[in-house]
Amino acid sequence: MTVTADVCVLGAGLIGGSLMRALGPGRTFGWNRSAAGAEAATAAGFAVTTDLTATLRRARQDDALVVVAVPLPALDTVLDAVAEHAPDVALTDVISVKGPVLDAARRRGLAARFVGGHPMAGTAHSGWDATDPDLFRGATWLVAADDHTDPDTWTRVAGLALDTGARILSATSTDHDAAVARISHLGHVLAEALALSGARGGDLALALAAGSFRDGTRVAATAPDLVRAICEPNRDALLEVLDECLADLGAARSALAERGTLGALVERGHHARRAYDLAQTDRADGRGEPLEVTPGADGWLEELRAAGAAGREVRPVG
Amino acid sequence: MTVTADVCVLGAGLIGGSLMRALGPGRTFGWNRSAAGAEAATAAGFAVTTDLTATLRRARQDDALVVVAVPLPALDTVLDAVAEHAPDVALTDVISVKGPVLDAARRRGLAARFVGGHPMAGTAHSGWDATDPDLFRGATWLVAADDHTDPDTWTRVAGLALDTGARILSATSTDHDAAVARISHLGHVLAEALALSGARGGDLALALAAGSFRDGTRVAATAPDLVRAICEPNRDALLEVLDECLADLGAARSALAERGTLGALVERGHHARRAYDLAQTDRADGRGEPLEVTPGADGWLEELRAAGAAGREVRPVG
Repeated sequence: MTVTADVCVLGAGLIGGSLMRALGPGRTFGWNRSAAGAEAATAAGFAVTTDLTATLRRARQDDALVVVAVPLPALDTVLDAVAEHAPDVALTDVISVKGPVLDAARRRGLAARFVGGHPMAGTAHSGWDATDPDLFRGATWLVAADDHTDPDTWTRVAGLALDTGARILSATSTDHDAAVARISHLGHVLAEALALSGARGGDLALALAAGSFRDGTRVAATAPDLVRAICEPNRDALLEVLDECLADLGAARSALAERGTLGALVERGHHARRAYDLAQTDRADGRGEPLEVTPGADGWLEELRAAGAAGREVRPVG
Repeated sequence: MTVTADVCVLGAGLIGGSLMRALGPGRTFGWNRSAAGAEAATAAGFAVTTDLTATLRRARQDDALVVVAVPLPALDTVLDAVAEHAPDVALTDVISVKGPVLDAARRRGLAARFVGGHPMAGTAHSGWDATDPDLFRGATWLVAADDHTDPDTWTRVAGLALDTGARILSATSTDHDAAVARISHLGHVLAEALALSGARGGDLALALAAGSFRDGTRVAATAPDLVRAICEPNRDALLEVLDECLADLGAARSALAERGTLGALVERGHHARRAYDLAQTDRADGRGEPLEVTPGADGWLEELRAAGAAGREVRPVG
């Protein structure tokens, strides 16, 4: 039996390259902007070229699922090429914000077979050398459940995620973006602010810094361009969360100045962290079987969204 | 040769108990408020009782170095007993804020032989069961260099720190408190705010949370009472740092709203985190030999403070 190369990956960096390695060279082919990245992938046995047009023509001919795995600033260029050379392929992406990608696909008439995705996995490193076939194992892969989603494409994207060892959560692009502003983008902003505060204390402060400073500033080690490419496209959701956070911190500041206590913030923050720990424990214990959903059946998108709102994994059946 | 029990530890919790275990039962004796903690220490072979008066009388008789290792809220009670039963012993502490402890010692006429200390080590756990004889190995132990410091006591406190495997940094209590507001207390406040923001996103957000949220909220898992006991006594320094941080975050918020960029904060935060990484690397590589200082020699306190401001380890000689 010959395995069909049914997945076309555009961008062989950390996420795209890891996806190719997770699925193997028999199922994947792709494109990379830089010749160095394409050569590294080729040397590892993968069919990766720097010819975007040829790659998209092959995808169209083979009806491959096209995975856009470039950083957001490169999205427009890549989607223009998709619209020109493979306008009717099944299309997904692995970019960390979903609303702007959906809008970009719609603007080019590509929405009918587009289903956004976001694997919640990564490292501070980038490029083919950082790829890892097990990067997605046990990770959560968000598969979007927007209005008018094509059931067949959703099923293919979900199958892709499952084949990497990920678990699937589903939500609208809007709800995804609001959630990641909270659990990822705000964390980037606070880590930068904490690092800056520490360094302002000079060599004494940095010499006294221990584990809590190291962990609290870890994501500030990420390259600034990458942090901005992750956070800035989610501006509206991040602004809302930043305003809430500034209000929380301002209230704590006032309570400390006026009454000598950080009370409410500390109690609520601890309670919140416990909720996170419980969610992780439930997940590790495998409590809550995945909800099985039949793509295309009556109310399937509502089922997906309700499961996502409850933090429950889903699986396509039927 | 008989080893003299020259260290009296008041409070056999995580820090005090680990100190006893690092030095061994031959060199230490102590007191613990709760009978359960005293019994656990006794079962492990340490002379720990619940009789504070008797413990302090023994310390006075043996000229032991008394180490106050109780949480700050219990400090007044313990120092009252020291002033009553052992007013002339050599005295130090391991509490995470130094100015308020120095003030409390001064108010009781205990300042002549008091030298504050702060080992930068800990875990989210507490009590004898969490103790670890290697807790301080490689950690930084701040030994205060305040005006009118008694050289003999400073030397004994420094020797205690070195005997646990720690490295010594020195600074005034005021400079210590300003530094830890930056690299510890602000981190607690931001971790609570990040946890709260995540939980506000409900089960979807918590299910999408990955490594950066886990690390960024780690210290929010610490018991709220402990977080408050660590941060609130350092109110003035923490307020100053919180105000700087609120200004940084407010500027980033404005830049994002008006120009769609987090630029300056991300660049500066990344630069700051690199400065921290470099400081850690220098330390791990052993660059910068400890500065040898002769306690009591002309200008010795200024030497200690200058080394501390440069993040440089010190060692007593002579």
